[in-house]
Formats: sequence, C-alpha cells, structure tokens
Amino acid sequence: MKVGFIGLGSMGSGMARNLIKAGNSVIVYNRTQSRAEQFRAVGAQVASTPTEASQAEVVITMLADDAAVESVILDPGNILQSMPEGSVHISMSTISVALSRRLTILHAEKQQHYVAAPVFGRPDAAEAAKLFVVAAGKSSQVERCRGLFDVLGQKTFVVGEEPAAANLIKLTGNFLITTVIESLAEAFAVVKKSGMDATVLLDVLTGSLFNTPVYRNYGGMIAAEQFEPAGFKMPLGLKDNRLVLAAAEELAVPLPMASLVHDRFVSALAQGMEKLDWSAIARVAYKDAGL
Amino acid sequence: MKVGFIGLGSMGSGMARNLIKAGNSVIVYNRTQSRAEQFRAVGAQVASTPTEASQAEVVITMLADDAAVESVILDPGNILQSMPEGSVHISMSTISVALSRRLTILHAEKQQHYVAAPVFGRPDAAEAAKLFVVAAGKSSQVERCRGLFDVLGQKTFVVGEEPAAANLIKLTGNFLITTVIESLAEAFAVVKKSGMDATVLLDVLTGSLFNTPVYRNYGGMIAAEQFEPAGFKMPLGLKDNRLVLAAAEELAVPLPMASLVHDRFVSALAQGMEKLDWSAIARVAYKDAGL
Amino acid sequence: MKVGFIGLGSMGSGMARNLIKAGNSVIVYNRTQSRAEQFRAVGAQVASTPTEASQAEVVITMLADDAAVESVILDPGNILQSMPEGSVHISMSTISVALSRRLTILHAEKQQHYVAAPVFGRPDAAEAAKLFVVAAGKSSQVERCRGLFDVLGQKTFVVGEEPAAANLIKLTGNFLITTVIESLAEAFAVVKKSGMDATVLLDVLTGSLFNTPVYRNYGGMIAAEQFEPAGFKMPLGLKDNRLVLAAAEELAVPLPMASLVHDRFVSALAQGMEKLDWSAIARVAYKDAGL
Amino acid sequence: MKVGFIGLGSMGSGMARNLIKAGNSVIVYNRTQSRAEQFRAVGAQVASTPTEASQAEVVITMLADDAAVESVILDPGNILQSMPEGSVHISMSTISVALSRRLTILHAEKQQHYVAAPVFGRPDAAEAAKLFVVAAGKSSQVERCRGLFDVLGQKTFVVGEEPAAANLIKLTGNFLITTVIESLAEAFAVVKKSGMDATVLLDVLTGSLFNTPVYRNYGGMIAAEQFEPAGFKMPLGLKDNRLVLAAAEELAVPLPMASLVHDRFVSALAQGMEKLDWSAIARVAYKDAGL
Repeated sequence: MKVGFIGLGSMGSGMARNLIKAGNSVIVYNRTQSRAEQFRAVGAQVASTPTEASQAEVVITMLADDAAVESVILDPGNILQSMPEGSVHISMSTISVALSRRLTILHAEKQQHYVAAPVFGRPDAAEAAKLFVVAAGKSSQVERCRGLFDVLGQKTFVVGEEPAAANLIKLTGNFLITTVIESLAEAFAVVKKSGMDATVLLDVLTGSLFNTPVYRNYGGMIAAEQFEPAGFKMPLGLKDNRLVLAAAEELAVPLPMASLVHDRFVSALAQGMEKLDWSAIARVAYKDAGL
Repeated sequence: MKVGFIGLGSMGSGMARNLIKAGNSVIVYNRTQSRAEQFRAVGAQVASTPTEASQAEVVITMLADDAAVESVILDPGNILQSMPEGSVHISMSTISVALSRRLTILHAEKQQHYVAAPVFGRPDAAEAAKLFVVAAGKSSQVERCRGLFDVLGQKTFVVGEEPAAANLIKLTGNFLITTVIESLAEAFAVVKKSGMDATVLLDVLTGSLFNTPVYRNYGGMIAAEQFEPAGFKMPLGLKDNRLVLAAAEELAVPLPMASLVHDRFVSALAQGMEKLDWSAIARVAYKDAGL
Repeated sequence: MKVGFIGLGSMGSGMARNLIKAGNSVIVYNRTQSRAEQFRAVGAQVASTPTEASQAEVVITMLADDAAVESVILDPGNILQSMPEGSVHISMSTISVALSRRLTILHAEKQQHYVAAPVFGRPDAAEAAKLFVVAAGKSSQVERCRGLFDVLGQKTFVVGEEPAAANLIKLTGNFLITTVIESLAEAFAVVKKSGMDATVLLDVLTGSLFNTPVYRNYGGMIAAEQFEPAGFKMPLGLKDNRLVLAAAEELAVPLPMASLVHDRFVSALAQGMEKLDWSAIARVAYKDAGL
Repeated sequence: MKVGFIGLGSMGSGMARNLIKAGNSVIVYNRTQSRAEQFRAVGAQVASTPTEASQAEVVITMLADDAAVESVILDPGNILQSMPEGSVHISMSTISVALSRRLTILHAEKQQHYVAAPVFGRPDAAEAAKLFVVAAGKSSQVERCRGLFDVLGQKTFVVGEEPAAANLIKLTGNFLITTVIESLAEAFAVVKKSGMDATVLLDVLTGSLFNTPVYRNYGGMIAAEQFEPAGFKMPLGLKDNRLVLAAAEELAVPLPMASLVHDRFVSALAQGMEKLDWSAIARVAYKDAGL
C-alpha cells in the first residue's frame, strides 16, 4: 500500500520502519528533515513537505500534540488540501477529542476519510511492533486500514464508528496509567520509610493481583528511580492530562484523580523535571514524604 | 498439625475448610457459635471459647478488625494466657501495624511465637485455596507455617523478619486496590457519558496493559454496577483505609490518593451503602458525575 | 469625560448608571440592544455597534468572558481599529492573563492605551458603587482613569505597571472566594449532621476571626441554601476557576484547592445547577455528606 | 471565686494571670512545676498535684491534647475523684468530641458539672484577654462560669446544652483556619512566581473582602515566611486536623479540604518542621511550586 507517514519522533520512527519492512511503499516526512533522510537507507521515499507525503492512499500522522497536527493538516496549503479524494488519514498520536471531531468533519467535506487510531505502548513497543491500537471510524475504512494496524501492533481494538471515541478511550487509558504511577509512588514511599526496599512490595504486587505490564514496567522504573531516558516526556504527560480533563469537563464528569495527578505534573515541571519520563511525578510524591 | 482456627466469617470459613481437607486436626471457634457447629460435619472440633481453641501448635486468627483481635488475644483470660509455650499465633486478617507490633512483643514475653500472614483474595479465592499469603516473622517460624500457607493459597511471599512488615505490605496492597476502583469509576463515568458502554474501555484495558485480575474483577463489577453480594463490605474498606493512613502518618508519608478514597468511603456510608461491596465507592463517583 | 461602555449585564448596568449619574457623557453598547435602549432614559447615548461606542476618550468593557472581549475588540472591523489614538481601553471584567497580555501589545501597536481594572463585588455592590477596583497599567493612564474608578467603587488598588498583574490578582482573589465557599460548605455539613443549625457556626465565625463580608455573605447564602437569584452564575465560576488554573499552570504552580473546587463546579453542572449562584457548589458537598 | 487552673502552657499562663488579676482566688498546677512557681509572685497558690488544684468551685483545664486531659482527669486518684460535688470542670483546650462526651457522663455520675469552653485566639490574645470563648453545657452552669469567660475573652458564644457541641464548633473553626492558611499559600505562590510580592495580593485582600484577623495575621506570617516563634505548633495543628476528620467521619461527612490539609501537615513533619507554627504548611505549598 502507498503510505504517507508524517512524524518520525521516538514513536513514529519505529512504526514507519515496521511499515516499510512489511512491504508497503512509504513516503516519510519529518519537520527536522535530517531525521527523515535516515529512512532512505531502509527504502523509504523522503518528502520535503507534508503535502508531498500526502500523495498516498493512506496518510498516517504521529505528531506530538494538537498544534502539530493542526499545522500539518489544516494550515493553508497543507494536506487537507492535497490528500486525494477517497484517501484516508489515520491519526495515531494522542490528540484531543475536540480536534478529532473537527478532523472528522473537515475530511468528510473533502471526500476524504478519517480514522482515529491512537496507540498504547512506549518507543520499544513501537519498534517491536507490539503496540495496542485503538481504532474508530467508519467500519469500511477501519477494515481498509486493518492490515497496517496488524503490522504496527499486537492487537487492534475497534471501539466505534465515531473517530473521537478512540481518542477518548486512549485519553482515559493514559489517565489510568498516571493513576498507577501516582499510587505506586505513594505506596513505595510508605514501604521505603518503613525500612523496606520498594521492590519487596513490587514483587508481591506483580506476583499476585497486579501481574501486568503497567505495574511491572512503571513499578520497576519508580522503584529504581530511573526516569531517564524518557520514554514519554513530562510535558507530554501534562498535555494528555489536560486533554482528559478537558474532555471530561465537556461531558460534565469530575475526575478528582486526574486533578491530583495534574498538580503532580505541574509540581514536577516547577522542580525542573521537564526532560524526565512522566513517571518522575513519583519524585514529587517522594519529596513530599521527605525522601 | 494441630491447628486452632478463630474467626469463621466469609474468608475464614473457606480457609478453615481447606486446612481440614488437607488433613490437619483443626479446632474452630467463632463468636456466633452456630456458624462453628457446621464444621463438625467436615471433621473439625468445635471450641466454645477462644481459650479452648488455643490448645494447639498453631493458632490462626481471621477476624474482622483490631478490636476483634484484641478481644480474643488480649482480654483477661484470653489466648495470650492460654497458648502453650512454643506455639505460634498466625494473624491472617488485616490488622494495624501498631497492633501487630504489640502482639510481637506480647507473644515473645510469653515464650510464644507470632507470625503475621495477611492474605490477598476475596471469599471465592479463600474457598478455592487461591489466596496470596504475605508472611513475615522469624524465618524458622515462617518456615514452620509454610505448609499451612501452601494449603491456603497459591503463593506465599515472605517479606521480612519483622511481623508488622507483612501488615504494612498488605495495607499498601489494599490501598492500591482502592485506587484501581476509584480510577476505574472515574474513567467509566467519562466513557458512559460520552455514550459508550463502560465495557468498551474495560475490554481495551484488560486486553492490553491492564490484563490482570484486579482490573478484570473490579472492572467487571463496576461496569455492571453489581455491588452485591459484598465480597468485602464497605465499612471494612474504610477500616483498611484508616489503617493505611495511620501507618503512613506515623511514617510521615502523605497519601493524597488514600485521602481521596477516604472521602469516597465516608460519602458512600453517608449515602447508605454500608451493606455493599467496597467497590461501590464507584457509585459516589458516578453520582458526582450526574449518572 | 466621554466614555464608551460595552456590556450591560448584571454588573455592567449598575456601573454604567453610576458613570452617567456622576456627569460623564456615556455611550453604551450591548449585544442585546433592548437592554441598551433603557439607558436613554437616564441620559446615555445608545450605540448600535461596538465601533460606534468606541468613539470616546475611554472605552470600558464589562463582558462575560474572553470570547466576548475578543469578539468586541479584535474581530475584523472592531474597536481595536476604531478607537482614537491616545484613547484608553479599560477592561473591567474577569479575563485571562493571556488575553490581557495580548491586549497590552495590540493597543500599544495602535497608539492606544490599555488598563486592566477588574473588580471585586457582586451586582448589588456594582449598583451601590461599592466595588473594589484592582487596576494595573502605565501610571499615567491609571491616574487618568482614577476618577472613573472612584465613581464605580469604594476603593482602588493599583498593583503594577503591567496590566496582566491586575487580572492575576483578580483571579487569585476569586479563587480564594471559592475556597471560602467550599470550606464553609464542608464545615456546615459537619455542624448540621451533628444536629445543630449551620447558623450556630456562622455566628461564631462572623462574630470572631472571620468577621468579613466574604464569610458573612456566602456563609448566609450557604446556611440558608439560597442560591437564587444568582449573583454570579455557576458557569462563570467554572470559567474563572479554569482561568486561575491556566495562569498557575503557566507559572508552574500547583493549586490543589483550585483543583478540588474545579471538580465541585463540574459536578454541580453535571447535576443541573447551571442557573444557580456559584456558591451552590456547597450543594455538592452537602450531597456527598448525604444531606 | 475559687478557681483551680491546670495547664500553664503558652495559652494557659496568660489566661491564669488574667483570672488572678480579676480578683479570683486561683490555685495553679502545671506538670513542670517550675513553671507554676512563677505564679506565686502574682498571688496564686501553687498545687503540687492536679488533685490539690481540684479543691475549688471551678477547675479549668488548658492542656495540650486528649491524652493530657485523660491523664489529669481520669487517671486513678485524679481529679474526677477529688473534685467537690457541685463543682464545675471547664475544659478550655481543644479536645475531641468523643472525650468531651465521655467527660459529660463521668462528671454527671459524680454529681459534678462539666462545661466545654474551647477558645479561639493565639497566645498574645490569651494574654490580652482577647480570646473568643465557645461555651456549651447546661445553661445554669454556663451562666455560673460566664464571669470567668468575660475575664478571659472579648466575647462568649454559647452554642448549646451539650458540651461536645462547643468542641465540634471549635474543631470546625480550626479546620477553617487551616483552609485559610493553605489557600493563601497557594495564592501567594502564584503571585510570587508572577514576579509580584505576596503583599500586593495581601493588601488587596485585607483592604476589601477579606478584612479580618485570620487573613491579616496568617497572611502576614505566610507572606513574610515567618513561622517562628510558633504560636501554635505543627504537631498540634495535625492533632486538631485529626480530631475534625474523626468527628466528621463519625457523622459520615467527607471533608476533602481537611484531607488535603492533612497531607500538608504530614508532609511538613516529614520535612522537619515540627518546631514551626502550623501555618508553615505554606512552605510545603511553596516547595511544590518550586519556590
């Protein structure tokens, strides 16, 4: 399949590579072009503008935030204008429910298709094609893209016909991950101050009721206080927190745990942790406990 | 082994039954004696006082709270007085760190042994011998009891020589379960008000990063709003929350998530949910969202 | 002085009336023009567009939110274009720090002046000229406007040369009012459930350490559960809460109390209280207590 | 009147002095007797045991916490035994609702009277006879003590016939003071990080809607970051917070703001602030903001 791939960050580069390996004809674009150039060696075409990358059956965006997506899709002269009729835009990064709704309308007006398919998983999962894909959109279009999802991830969940549903599921999922991080940080602080090692608790948890990647991986990082290199940076964590709070507010749902985590993110940034992994909000909990 | 078993509630009755099945000579005691009488049929002796049940190599207590344990162990004429020298008391219910420390000292003064071995798992797990046992105490005594733990659970974690360590691990584990309940309730509220079924999110979670019993079981109950029959009643949930807050306060560790959950428990009781499972704090979250 | 006055809502109408009474030549504008027409009787000119109202030495805006101000000031053909050189725009409603900064720059580019002068006080205070004015901007311009402030309020605080400083002070002040509302609601819930009347506590408070309008007025409303007519509507409360959280986030300051109040506002809206006074978040606290 | 006065700490010593000055015959007791000896010079008798001090018409206790009161009143051989029939015990320190209820019953059994009369005000107010007294108990007994209250304070509030009501009012009042401290700390953090001095906001507040001692005094301390000497020490602050949370929990009232403040107190102690004034919880807020 002819695939345009926009956004070769820590997630996108592994994903693009997997699409190429699977035999797709991929044209990549990245704002910092040097990063894109490296993909020539593995067989990609390199576009010098998003518009160029949009000449494809499928255009995938994997960008940092709403602003980046808006700039690439909606700015004058950009890919909303240039995508062929009948082609499909798959938005795979974590964007707002509101922007996803807007893209649904705008692509429809241009006779283009739009599928939201954000993913769970960190850069190593992207590289290993072990992502979890949460897809929503018109069934026919989701089916059309399924082969690509299978290449990128270990499992695809189809959650509805309305693309924004996938974004909401992704945002609530990320919210749940932040609650795991915060709760483990608090629990470890108790255990450490009692004189035990955090791993004593972690081993009990992951050996019993909490035997699952999210506790194992984040638990390991927090127990070891190992927050670099960042798989997902602090400011992105705050961004996703803001997005879930905004989505919930629009639906009139209070999220006290997300509010609590929000304050942790803000405090982490106040304390100079912008380069660390988002799980470093644990450090704020530790500091509050005098650790 | 000759085992005294005190406390035949929803957890204890399954546990006592498994000990009997495994060939131990078990003498049971329960405050409401009719409940104990049923155990004659499966081969238990029935004691009419705790003291009588304490004439054994091992005495296990599985009681509702600190007050119940204090009454059985410490009240004048009770089993601290009557346990034979060299016998061991295994405290398996969720009690405070402070009481566990006190029992450590008191049993030692009487030349008795004390092992703390609280368990994770609900009544069905107790019956199926699928509990997770968290044990702490002198190694020799923990080893002496290991055969019993193997009969009661699927796995035993030994977390230290100081009995209270096991209670702290158990309390932080229960705290983590409450954060799962609360976070799922908030996430489901968002998903439901957006027009999706809560199970859409639950399937994504348990099919990906959160594929573990605590999310599957509580997620299922909360999605179905099925809080009866109660596996673990609301007031017991509040009790454990109080215990972890007290233990953390003594260690000078703030637990904002436990504070948040505390307020949910109090609100649940204010709204008449004392008979429901502790996971019904989800209802408070739902109500706050206008659901 | 020739004054353009834009925005004749529950606050603005009292303010405009006071300016007229004091002998200023006032030209009023309101989006719903019928409301403006009533001002002819007291001697105002009535403009049919913001542009018309901007032909003055001073233009005051007293509008609901950022969007309303942006529309009147910044939309094509609007008053940024039409205000005379050397005239001054006084923005008196509660707007964001970010918009205030933007207006500072835009007016300067047009050789116009800009003073931020948000006010504390509810509609009755506006009518009685008892507002508190918090002003910031170039000293010379603030002095130029001082006569108007004296007409509108009982006291003017000048807080800096940077207009946005006044907006930040106003937003933190409103934040503090919400903490008073929430804390009184919680305290009254305790007192009521103990069998006393809320006024027992209120009388002690306002007769001792808390003898000040914000406790007297909101305390009275919450004790009487009298949330209509709304002096300041719930959605405006949530808006100001959002603005202070955004301003604080930009400064990397966590505001856990504002987060808590945020969740109350969202819950109040979820429960259909959008027509009530913002102090009706007390009802959410009461409900959580089973009252 | 013959008055026994027990507890000559920073509050009690000023109070006892005022009672003596007003012409009462006062017999004082303090655990550290040297402190009591100083009162001979101003005309007090000095008791060497609480029992000795209890030979009076009225016995006032002004002690640090429940444990201190229990020890003086309830320990074997203590003043419950020795107070004359018909005499009255006025408990003026901040104790739990539960203990106050217990004292009500115990004194009644001994044909003694019991009035709860906790006070608002810090040591300087105690010395200046500017306290606010919150009294509850049988009317006849409250009236009997009113002359003493008039000597000690500037105003007496009678809140009911049930002594514990006064304790509940006092505890909720202290809770409200902690919300003022915390909210000011958060607001000041915003103002400071924006580049203004905290006093800019404080002047606006105390010059407008918040013109009352609690904002002036605590606001001044927090703005100046002046937390020594401690008028009311951090551990006492945590104690009162615990008491209000316990009272509220018993009434099934969630107090999210008290929970939040609880976590601040615990964090303050974790960071070594046990000697500072309770308003130093502001420092935790400042630290979380990177200040």
